[in-house]
Amino acid sequence: MSGKVRDKKENCFLIFAPKNDHYKQMLTNISRPTLLVNENQCRSNIQSMLTKATTNGAVFRPHFKTHQSGLIGKWFADAGIKAITVSSVKMATYFATHGWKDITIAFPVNLRELDAIDQLACRVRLQLVVDDEQVFEQIGQQVKNACEFMIKIDVGYQRAGIPMENAEAIASLAARIQNSKQHKLRGLLTHAGQNYRAGGGISQVEATTRIAGEKMQALRHVIGRSDLVLSWGDTPSCSMLNHIPYFDEWRPGNFVFYDVMQYHIGSCQFSDIAVAMACPVVSVYPERGELLMYGGSVHFSGDYIAGDNNFRLYGYVVPLTENGWGQPLPSAYVASLSQEHGIVRMSQAQLKFYKPGDLIGILPIHSCLTADAVEKMQSTTGFLIPKM
Amino acid sequence: MSGKVRDKKENCFLIFAPKNDHYKQMLTNISRPTLLVNENQCRSNIQSMLTKATTNGAVFRPHFKTHQSGLIGKWFADAGIKAITVSSVKMATYFATHGWKDITIAFPVNLRELDAIDQLACRVRLQLVVDDEQVFEQIGQQVKNACEFMIKIDVGYQRAGIPMENAEAIASLAARIQNSKQHKLRGLLTHAGQNYRAGGGISQVEATTRIAGEKMQALRHVIGRSDLVLSWGDTPSCSMLNHIPYFDEWRPGNFVFYDVMQYHIGSCQFSDIAVAMACPVVSVYPERGELLMYGGSVHFSGDYIAGDNNFRLYGYVVPLTENGWGQPLPSAYVASLSQEHGIVRMSQAQLKFYKPGDLIGILPIHSCLTADAVEKMQSTTGFLIPKM
Repeated sequence: MSGKVRDKKENCFLIFAPKNDHYKQMLTNISRPTLLVNENQCRSNIQSMLTKATTNGAVFRPHFKTHQSGLIGKWFADAGIKAITVSSVKMATYFATHGWKDITIAFPVNLRELDAIDQLACRVRLQLVVDDEQVFEQIGQQVKNACEFMIKIDVGYQRAGIPMENAEAIASLAARIQNSKQHKLRGLLTHAGQNYRAGGGISQVEATTRIAGEKMQALRHVIGRSDLVLSWGDTPSCSMLNHIPYFDEWRPGNFVFYDVMQYHIGSCQFSDIAVAMACPVVSVYPERGELLMYGGSVHFSGDYIAGDNNFRLYGYVVPLTENGWGQPLPSAYVASLSQEHGIVRMSQAQLKFYKPGDLIGILPIHSCLTADAVEKMQSTTGFLIPKM
Repeated sequence: MSGKVRDKKENCFLIFAPKNDHYKQMLTNISRPTLLVNENQCRSNIQSMLTKATTNGAVFRPHFKTHQSGLIGKWFADAGIKAITVSSVKMATYFATHGWKDITIAFPVNLRELDAIDQLACRVRLQLVVDDEQVFEQIGQQVKNACEFMIKIDVGYQRAGIPMENAEAIASLAARIQNSKQHKLRGLLTHAGQNYRAGGGISQVEATTRIAGEKMQALRHVIGRSDLVLSWGDTPSCSMLNHIPYFDEWRPGNFVFYDVMQYHIGSCQFSDIAVAMACPVVSVYPERGELLMYGGSVHFSGDYIAGDNNFRLYGYVVPLTENGWGQPLPSAYVASLSQEHGIVRMSQAQLKFYKPGDLIGILPIHSCLTADAVEKMQSTTGFLIPKM
């Protein structure tokens, strides 16, 4: 691909030099916090998850809220993926513009966006999520273009959906949708967000997944539609478990990048993490064992991992290399973030390697929020990755 | 002002109707999380803080990172303010474009932005912050247009700056700057961020302020320059204390909006808070005593106030009224935020007033981060407030 511009629509610079000089040049030019993206690792993460979903008999419908990038979407398309998940009407519209024709908006329908939804439903195969009969009634009256509906099932996360135990309400909503002339009931959808805080590790994730899977299969029988699609998809369960035989569709999103949170949950190794922030070092304080970087909560989001004695971990430090970055430096971490400031703590011996004007690499705690917050994403092969 | 377009440059809709019909119409048109801004309350907060700074013999140089809006900047200009503070070179450039001529970038100089700094210094009176002699040396070599320098003093927050006890290092950096031909030493600058977490209340804030003030006055003598400007400015101390006789300049920022965090610290009353988020109600769960709103950490930031037993407060609920919003509803609050979802907890009696498709008003925990994160700000008189 050397010397070729691959995609003019994406408005990104895609000339690859064999020795990765573009990446070196790009690092030199970074002046503000920038998210570095390892394309090869992303493609590998995509392929692994696709293989795993397929092996488990599920269609892979990845969540695109993690990257929000038309270009990264193409890496999924290159792997043969045709259907996607997003979290907002705006995001659905963006990816429709990038050529995606089969889109699930995995957020309960917001009645204030029905016009935009109707316009979108005219362009793509659109799946909407509902958990309320009155809401469906209003959609039925206002959205004229055909949509497919997924009933949101709450499998214990208690964020959105009808509780899985409430078969009566689920069946009643299903009947209401099936009575519609223009809209169809496609399936049941859930997000087991409790798997993100699974203190019990893999056995707890396994139990949550099994209980949810069996219950949703039973609900299919209650509704009397064996063809209903059962849609599942949090990155921890899809990463940690080898055998998930209950669902027809997987919708994980975070796995394309992974992050420190997923590492701590047990979903990935450090080497699977496909993003790192590059932040300018602004000042070094050897007497405190700390340095100040330009990179705060408006770039990383404020997410952290809490430990005993008020310990907070906002990210790990990685050395930036010619081809990307290396493994985390032992005992070095981001200790606090305010609006634009980040404080990195490390040994005095490690601090000697940093001076103002350098870049420091940071593995983020939560890659979805970091990718959302950051101004710029850059590939480790040197090109700009445009985002929504 | 009825029927007049006030400012074409701002690209905002400024026709005021006597009955505030534009606000009602604007609320009707809101489809995504939107920050409502009460212009009168902002102007009142600006006037109060200006009066207080003046009474204390200080020049008011407000921090604009809170609002990041050219239009809100004009409300400060209307009050007679001529000098401002920002937190990044990008923000300085934005406000220079909006006509500000005297700007302090209150973040230690990032050596990777010297070209942009040099360009800016050619257009405005620019104050830069430094805490490292080597950094100043490089600035001296590369920035040709004259700048003024503030030495960053760490008065105990341990984020940036030379510790106030280290008079030797401070004097040495001062001498280095004073040796420069093109640049000038203007003063000493600090941010007592510890006042944001002052568990000891007003007496602790008073002690921090007094110790910092006396120490910085002493440092002025060590350097031998009685004309050095001592620059101060966190919203808690500037709001809570009536008498701050130590400093020549105040730089608070948050006070223009205030927020729930400042209310809890004791800096403001609820009625002083000049912003509220308007979020679409998406689903109501009476059996859980909760509702789901469209509004998550990508809109609010993830900041919260922690209590015992894992209690977390992500915002208070306010009724939206014809002219803005009312006082917080008792016992109603935002209990959790994920990427786009917000869970609001309230009594079943309160929940009866909300249905999907309504808007719910939320007082944010941290207005600076919310204003940074949100897509849109709208005035309670009905016009769009453009931001950076």
